[in-house]
Amino acid sequence: MKGTMLYGARDVRFEERPDPTIIEPTDAIIKLSAACVCGSDLWPYRGIDAVKQPVAMGHEYVGIVQEVGSEVKNIKPGQFVVGSFFASDNTCEICRSGYQSSCVQRQPGAPTGAQAEYARIPLADGTLVATPELPSDDLIPSLLSASDVLGTGWFGAAAAEAGPGKTVAVVGDGAVGLLAILSAKQMGAERIIAMSRNKDRQKLALEFGATEIVTERGDEGVARIKDLTNGLGAHSVVEAVGTQEAMMQSIRAARPGGHVGFVGVLHGVEIEGWEYFFSHVHLHGGPAPVRNYLPHLIDLIWNRKINPGKVFDLTLPLARVAEGYKAMDERSAIKALLIP
Amino acid sequence: MKGTMLYGARDVRFEERPDPTIIEPTDAIIKLSAACVCGSDLWPYRGIDAVKQPVAMGHEYVGIVQEVGSEVKNIKPGQFVVGSFFASDNTCEICRSGYQSSCVQRQPGAPTGAQAEYARIPLADGTLVATPELPSDDLIPSLLSASDVLGTGWFGAAAAEAGPGKTVAVVGDGAVGLLAILSAKQMGAERIIAMSRNKDRQKLALEFGATEIVTERGDEGVARIKDLTNGLGAHSVVEAVGTQEAMMQSIRAARPGGHVGFVGVLHGVEIEGWEYFFSHVHLHGGPAPVRNYLPHLIDLIWNRKINPGKVFDLTLPLARVAEGYKAMDERSAIKALLIP
Repeated sequence: MKGTMLYGARDVRFEERPDPTIIEPTDAIIKLSAACVCGSDLWPYRGIDAVKQPVAMGHEYVGIVQEVGSEVKNIKPGQFVVGSFFASDNTCEICRSGYQSSCVQRQPGAPTGAQAEYARIPLADGTLVATPELPSDDLIPSLLSASDVLGTGWFGAAAAEAGPGKTVAVVGDGAVGLLAILSAKQMGAERIIAMSRNKDRQKLALEFGATEIVTERGDEGVARIKDLTNGLGAHSVVEAVGTQEAMMQSIRAARPGGHVGFVGVLHGVEIEGWEYFFSHVHLHGGPAPVRNYLPHLIDLIWNRKINPGKVFDLTLPLARVAEGYKAMDERSAIKALLIP
Repeated sequence: MKGTMLYGARDVRFEERPDPTIIEPTDAIIKLSAACVCGSDLWPYRGIDAVKQPVAMGHEYVGIVQEVGSEVKNIKPGQFVVGSFFASDNTCEICRSGYQSSCVQRQPGAPTGAQAEYARIPLADGTLVATPELPSDDLIPSLLSASDVLGTGWFGAAAAEAGPGKTVAVVGDGAVGLLAILSAKQMGAERIIAMSRNKDRQKLALEFGATEIVTERGDEGVARIKDLTNGLGAHSVVEAVGTQEAMMQSIRAARPGGHVGFVGVLHGVEIEGWEYFFSHVHLHGGPAPVRNYLPHLIDLIWNRKINPGKVFDLTLPLARVAEGYKAMDERSAIKALLIP
């Protein structure tokens, strides 16, 4: 088969790869129906995370089950499935508490290499959720988004305790930030403030449920949020970037007793204790337990209550995956959909 | 009157001070019934917080109201009152959400100088809570503890979401840590693990409700907590020290999805983002909103359901306040009670 490898900063190659096979009896092999480039793929693409050896790329996926291992009981060949980027058994105490991405058997970045024609999914029964039947083509982008970017935005909004009566600010206008807006809207938030200076992203933010746009950043952005909230700050802030500036902007934009949900992978961030102590802000986040939300998200998509697939504003044949990386790196696309 | 001044590291003086007077119409003047030394007073006493000029000490207090300003409506002369170390109006949106120590009108360290015969309390109606009648002498230490150390331990346990079915670990065996144990017990925690290597403190921890003692610290302490919790970590951890080691010990001892409530004033602490991101741990803490808990705590004390005053293991006449600092600094006393 063919799949995507990253050889170093900005060196993406679509090339011949070994066909994945069942290794553990709990594995499944899927044929990808669609794949995409994740914002987090840009960390190694940009050379911020070092690439020491060529690495298979892609961890967001939907597809048709081709084969299952001998211990797989619930997932069947022929099913259309959505899975999380962390394989999990979905039975341990941590999974049952809703933190499948910290499952005691977790396998991060599973599958390795989903920007490909086929992928091996470990712990298939725990990791995959089948749709009620084969979806129509127009639902596939949204179902794919549930695999990571929607699930991550949803976790950000949930960790920020978005809900009725709440004012929610979202720091970051990438696909995760935009889908955190959609999520906060679904959770019943009263006001949703999108922080963005990009016209196209502002437009999508408003379509997803944002009620206000703030174009300022850093301390000016914080001051603007305070202006909009009676001097107090937002009840809930979603951090969807992962930098020091975005994290501090999020903590400072939240009111005392407020909640910051952070889902940007934290890079070079240090939270200084003295300032944080006196902020009275709740912090929660990390790698989203997407598996926890998948049944609900699939249901919302299946019944066309939400259309998160709109974050894909560039569609390419999988063979042109390198163009997808480039467009996202240059921010000329929000998110690239890849069709095998 | 006489009161306590700190002139520099380890230089505590009990000396003549101006009588406090009503300055704002919302003030009250109280005659202290008892005072005490706070663990946080040790930061400047030890020279870790610089003392640039002589400073009036003491922020925990109970006493009899002597006089009130013209705008004080609910608090009356002759009442016995307990107050928080943050003056607050108790009417703003932040107070109403339970974060009085971040009140929009907050006055930190109010009163300044409660290790004295008299003290001025700002925002008296918002800050003070009167007992049903004058208390008997044996209740005074417990009522005094409610003013800070009990309220702070209570907030630590609440921020850590201690409750039924939960395993709670407490890092720090000072008075706040010990009272976090008492608080977790009141909140219905199933198991409470005290981290202490001091025999007397272990004894009080067990009396307050600890079910297990861990004597190891740092990474060894974390490993011991994991041993005791099926390899997962505690559901709830209270950080009651304020150092880098204690904060990281707390985060590492909590399971994914667990909660750390931190109430030690963070000194020189930096929370590194990458490790914290993958911990999946909730963080919440800061200066305790004692005023939020006072009615409930006073009720528990008044009805002799709890006896938090046991943390006072040294009683001195107020004039010998310097000995109280010394004993706490040397850890020969948990907490010093001062009788004017």
